[in-house]
Amino acid sequence: MAASIKDVAREAGVSIATVSRVLNEVDVVNEETKKKVQEAIKKLCYRPNIVARSLKTQRTKTIGILVPDISSQFYPEVVRGAEDVANIYDYNVMLCNSDFDLEKEKEYLKVMREKMVDGLIYMSSYLDSEMLDLINELQVSTVLVESKDKEGKLPSVTIDGVQAAYEGTKYLIEKGNKNVAFIGTHKDNPNAWSARFDGYVKALKEAGIEPNENLMYFDDLKSKTGYDGVESILKKSKFDAIFCSSDEIAMGAINSLRDKGIRVPEDVDVVGFNDIYTASIFYPKLTTVSQPMYDMGSIAMRLLIKLINKKPVEEKHFVLPHELIKRDSCK
Amino acid sequence: MAASIKDVAREAGVSIATVSRVLNEVDVVNEETKKKVQEAIKKLCYRPNIVARSLKTQRTKTIGILVPDISSQFYPEVVRGAEDVANIYDYNVMLCNSDFDLEKEKEYLKVMREKMVDGLIYMSSYLDSEMLDLINELQVSTVLVESKDKEGKLPSVTIDGVQAAYEGTKYLIEKGNKNVAFIGTHKDNPNAWSARFDGYVKALKEAGIEPNENLMYFDDLKSKTGYDGVESILKKSKFDAIFCSSDEIAMGAINSLRDKGIRVPEDVDVVGFNDIYTASIFYPKLTTVSQPMYDMGSIAMRLLIKLINKKPVEEKHFVLPHELIKRDSCK
Repeated sequence: MAASIKDVAREAGVSIATVSRVLNEVDVVNEETKKKVQEAIKKLCYRPNIVARSLKTQRTKTIGILVPDISSQFYPEVVRGAEDVANIYDYNVMLCNSDFDLEKEKEYLKVMREKMVDGLIYMSSYLDSEMLDLINELQVSTVLVESKDKEGKLPSVTIDGVQAAYEGTKYLIEKGNKNVAFIGTHKDNPNAWSARFDGYVKALKEAGIEPNENLMYFDDLKSKTGYDGVESILKKSKFDAIFCSSDEIAMGAINSLRDKGIRVPEDVDVVGFNDIYTASIFYPKLTTVSQPMYDMGSIAMRLLIKLINKKPVEEKHFVLPHELIKRDSCK
Repeated sequence: MAASIKDVAREAGVSIATVSRVLNEVDVVNEETKKKVQEAIKKLCYRPNIVARSLKTQRTKTIGILVPDISSQFYPEVVRGAEDVANIYDYNVMLCNSDFDLEKEKEYLKVMREKMVDGLIYMSSYLDSEMLDLINELQVSTVLVESKDKEGKLPSVTIDGVQAAYEGTKYLIEKGNKNVAFIGTHKDNPNAWSARFDGYVKALKEAGIEPNENLMYFDDLKSKTGYDGVESILKKSKFDAIFCSSDEIAMGAINSLRDKGIRVPEDVDVVGFNDIYTASIFYPKLTTVSQPMYDMGSIAMRLLIKLINKKPVEEKHFVLPHELIKRDSCK
């Protein structure tokens, strides 16, 4: 039978309230009494029941993390960064996979309220007003990762997606490529990923190149999109480079080109996005625009824990640096 | 202010105990009363506070998952499978990364006890008696994934690692290869991965080939191990095939061979292990022994939830089927 707070109080010869004050680090207990309590805790191997304490303190030391899919190539590293920081500050993470399914997200938000999470890290595609209302109703600190709400009300950790895609595309243009194709998510999607299309268009326009619909293919961020995108675009138009909205798309595109006897980078230059682990062991090694995935998670968690504990924050919107990583998929 | 259970009782004109019975689906409440309570719950938008209930029921509907590193290529899919099943049964998962660090694992186990998790899915390398004692002290149902404890006391979900590696190596021998190298974790490691070395040796011996230390390289499961392993073995001995303990090792090995002008599969056959997502988009597409990662997670979670709820289980040790996936990295 584990020792209770009563046992500790008896052992130390103090009241339960005093033990509680020591546990909660309230500074009104004198040093001598504090020491007695700590010795009793040690002697009895007492571990406070966090669930019972949660009810009193209204703190569960648990943070909800909502991701679309932990088995994708992007989110595990963000979650790892977040969990590492949570661990330092004695928080635990409750992991939820939403599959971009609004109903599932709503259900998870309800459960998080019921389980009294102290805060939420939210990664998803859509941030419509209904979802924002739900997040508000949670009444817990929330940090967005990868995306922002339109009005910028919620704290966020992102990169400058337009600028990042702009630099990736500009690099392809500077290599002398005239026909730069785009494979990615749909340009009208209300999420972080559409910024990549905007950056692509920006680079073209700056170089005096008119965006050509025949050189564009839209679907999701998976490798199949890259594979199918190459086939589709080849039927309509010639191209000498592709800017891809994800590394997985880039890998699918390169495989598709290879199957048609088109060489990368000799015939076509390819740039990816994210710099997932595999980008550097793929053949050819991918040139890509990196997002600091681990840092996004860890900075979001640090910001969130500050907000939960009402500590001053120097900044509500973190825009982390991206970087063009030059490898072997461009000439 | 959210409605409390008191408000529901007042609204329905019943006692708090009756509301509680309805919430907990205890069948002694008559239908009419039940209906009144349910209507009051709906009207007041009452959501039970799970934390408060947890103290009474001693159930938190939370399951701890301990993995070495969620940002590796293997665990995300296992965790995804586990979380999907947890979600169906209204459980949530608390995710912890141990980095194979015994001290970190111990700390997490303590926290899980304090936070009263209902069960634990444990994935790690070492299962010494100290760790088993700690898991026992948790006094919650625990299911091991990927490994077993020596005495087979704890329920587990694994594959037959020896047989899987045996089949992968045998395939290389049947291709006519005489000098089959091994790159993987150390043969004496007390974990699931050492089974892969045992399977390799078994296939060699069955074919009348004496295992040759010059053809072996041991480190971790990462791609760098594959890269370095090829360099190291090439200095000592010639080989015409490599059996690798992970797909990441295989990809590193292929890159290393490529950098030295050695072609896969024309000059050297390579077999990997796991069948991670990237195996099928790597070039050449990897021949590998697949582990059903998603199923391992989902079956472990289903078994665990049955154990938590004291439902009968048909089987305590699940050995799931592996499969040799033939792709392009072998002749």
